[in-house]
Order: sequence, then C-alpha cells, then structure tokens
Amino acid sequence: MSRTIKPADERRRELLNAARHLFFDRGYDNTSINDILNVVGLSKGAFYHHFSSKNALLDGLVDHEVADLYQATKAACLQPGLTALQRWQRLFERSAQWELANKTNWIVLLTSLYRDENLRYRLKLTQAAQLTTANLFSQVITQGVDEGSFSVTDPKACATILVSAHQALSDRIAELLLSQQNPAALDQIHQLCQATQELSERALGAPKGSLPIVDRATLAAWFQSQESPCAD
Amino acid sequence: MSRTIKPADERRRELLNAARHLFFDRGYDNTSINDILNVVGLSKGAFYHHFSSKNALLDGLVDHEVADLYQATKAACLQPGLTALQRWQRLFERSAQWELANKTNWIVLLTSLYRDENLRYRLKLTQAAQLTTANLFSQVITQGVDEGSFSVTDPKACATILVSAHQALSDRIAELLLSQQNPAALDQIHQLCQATQELSERALGAPKGSLPIVDRATLAAWFQSQESPCAD
Repeated sequence: MSRTIKPADERRRELLNAARHLFFDRGYDNTSINDILNVVGLSKGAFYHHFSSKNALLDGLVDHEVADLYQATKAACLQPGLTALQRWQRLFERSAQWELANKTNWIVLLTSLYRDENLRYRLKLTQAAQLTTANLFSQVITQGVDEGSFSVTDPKACATILVSAHQALSDRIAELLLSQQNPAALDQIHQLCQATQELSERALGAPKGSLPIVDRATLAAWFQSQESPCAD
Repeated sequence: MSRTIKPADERRRELLNAARHLFFDRGYDNTSINDILNVVGLSKGAFYHHFSSKNALLDGLVDHEVADLYQATKAACLQPGLTALQRWQRLFERSAQWELANKTNWIVLLTSLYRDENLRYRLKLTQAAQLTTANLFSQVITQGVDEGSFSVTDPKACATILVSAHQALSDRIAELLLSQQNPAALDQIHQLCQATQELSERALGAPKGSLPIVDRATLAAWFQSQESPCAD
C-alpha cells in the first residue's frame, strides 16, 4: 500500500480545517474526535500526535483564527509613525471596514458561534480576541500617556478593564444583528456605540468626539439586504 | 403503598437543590436528569412537569441563586432617602462585606464554577448577575444625573457597558483568588480595582475618589488563612 507522506504542519492544518467545518456545521459539542478523523482519513494516533484532546485542538484553532482575524487590523494600528489617537482611530476604522467587507461570512460565523453547541468555542474565541485587543489597547494607551493625549494612571490595568467594555459592545451588537425580528436593533446598537465611545474617551482622558467607534452609515449597511437592487 | 403528597413548589425546590449539589459535586456537564431524579426519588414525568430540559432547570436555578445573592445588597442600595453617590457606595460596600463574611462558601462556589464542566452554569450565572447589576446601575445613574452628581448622556446604555467592566474585574478577581500559586495576586487585584474605580468615576463624571470599589484591607483578608491564631 502506498501512502502519501505529508509534513506534520500540513496534517495539523488539515485537522484544524476539518474541525472548523464540523464545528460550524454541527457544533463543537456534537463533534467527536472520530468525526474529525473520518474527514481527514487519519488514525487516532495521528490526532494525538498533534493534540492531547478535542479541547486542546479547540485552543489551537482559536489561536489560529484570532491571529488571522487581527492580522490586518493589527498591522494598520501598529504602523510606524502614527500618534496614539491615530492608532486608536485606525483600530476601530479598519475593524469596522473589514467586518463589513466580509459581511456575509461574519453573519455565518456569528450565527454558528451563537449556537448553544458552540458556547465553548465562542467563549474561547472571545477570550483570545480580548487578550489580543488588550495588548493593542495597552500599547496605544501607554503611547498616548507619553505623548500627553491620554491621561490614565495605570495604562495596562485600564486596557484590561476597558477592553471588556468593548467586548460587551461587540456581544450586544452580535446578538442584536442576529435578532432579525427587532426593528429597533439599529438604534439600540447606535446608542450602545455612543455610550461606549463616551466611556472610552473619558476613561482615557481624551477629548470628546476624538475616539469614534463606528459611524451610523456603516452600522446601517449591516441591516441592508445582501442583494443590491439592479437598475436596467 | 402510601405516598406523601408534596406541594408543587416544594418539589420544584427539591429538584433545584438536588441539581445544585450535583452540579457543585460533579459539574453540570456530568450530571444527567436521571442523577437528579435518583436523589429526590421522583419520576421523569415529575421532572418534566417542572422543567422542559436540564438547560431549563439551570435557568430556574440561576434565577433563584441571583435573587438570593443580590437580595441584601439590593435592599441596602435601594433603601429610601439616599443620594445616588450613597447608593453606589453601598452597593459595593455591602457586596464586599457580604462576600467576605461568607468567604469559605465563596471560595467553594468559585472553585466549583470555574471547573470546566460548569462553564455553562458559570456563564448563565454571570449573565443573570450582570442583568441585575445593570438594572441597579441604571437606576442609580439616572438618579445621579437628576441630582447633578453624575453627568452621563445615556444612563441606561452607560449602565449596560459599565457593568461589563465591573464583571471583568470580578472575573479577574475570581481567577486570581483561585491561583494560589501567584504571590502577586493581591497587588494585581488591587491595581485592577483602582483602574476600574478611575474608569467608573470618569465614565459617570463623578469626583475622583468618590466611588471606591473595595479597600486594600478587605482585599488582603481574602488572602489570610481561614484559621485565626489562638492566644491562650
């Protein structure tokens, strides 16, 4: 019997890809290690060579996804030569643009993550995303304090706490986006964005209006139907 | 065969109590409806008379526990005749006192909730606690704005966002309390409390130092051993 020998990295990636599809399709709780192995055609031994458990695979998947999701935003935010205010603005501007450009995929991602069987997946993804964001916040706040544009006693602790306010906003936006029945969803999201902006500006000692999160037109685009009307 | 007929409320409470003990002992994920029925000696029919599923029982349990946990703090905070600043201070003062007075039970509760098998239980408890706290915050902030001691554009949205900053603090405190090995835990908790206080005061437009969360002596008491030395 001839067998193709693949590099270990490639096998690992195959396992992660197969797992990701299954988690999206039927949920993390409803996917067994055997289900993943059936897709990639590997043995249990090969699985345990890469991951000690399904939970450890989830950790690997989440690290991979967060690195992917934040790559462009992080690069835009940390580009050399920017002021702290510019970095903060970029962080939110690029995230909002990127998410909207990938709107259909985002809705699929959120719908899947908010399934009850993906609670653990969603929670791990949220925690890893928060850690990455807190690191970015901390760097930007420290620079802002040095430049005198922000005024914060403890930049690192402030970043840790402030990031959870932003996470709460993201969670509420996701829930409201998924609640198609709610006609007031856009208004509620807009109000929460403004409250989070006010809180952030005050927490950082930044001027009123200097740290916008997302404008109403960008928010409204999330509520427009996917198909644009054809004029002919 | 003679059978004691108990009122429906009492049976419901028995089911909740049995479930609570099992979730604490072996975790929510590892407890089946049959396990609960074996403890109380009831049939499946009796279970489904009260709850549509194990998940629905968890919702009932969480509602019950949050109502219990917040009863004293809520009464102290909403006592008639107080200013908003006094209400805010009471909310944190009473919570801290109550938790410390029940220190041993709290550590048991937290240890159990942070087990991987109780992720769902912890998350539901956290969400329900946040909702209760957000309602209290909202009432107090609205009063503070009316009195002129707070300055906030949208009290309700601000409460929703601010409560998650406080939840992040509680989560980090719990994790640090449970990480016995970490000698810097007390300092880290103290720093996060101060950062959350600064953020809250600024978010509410309240004077610096007016909204303490918990003093260092109270925090330090969490790190002292349970047995006090006997002098004889």
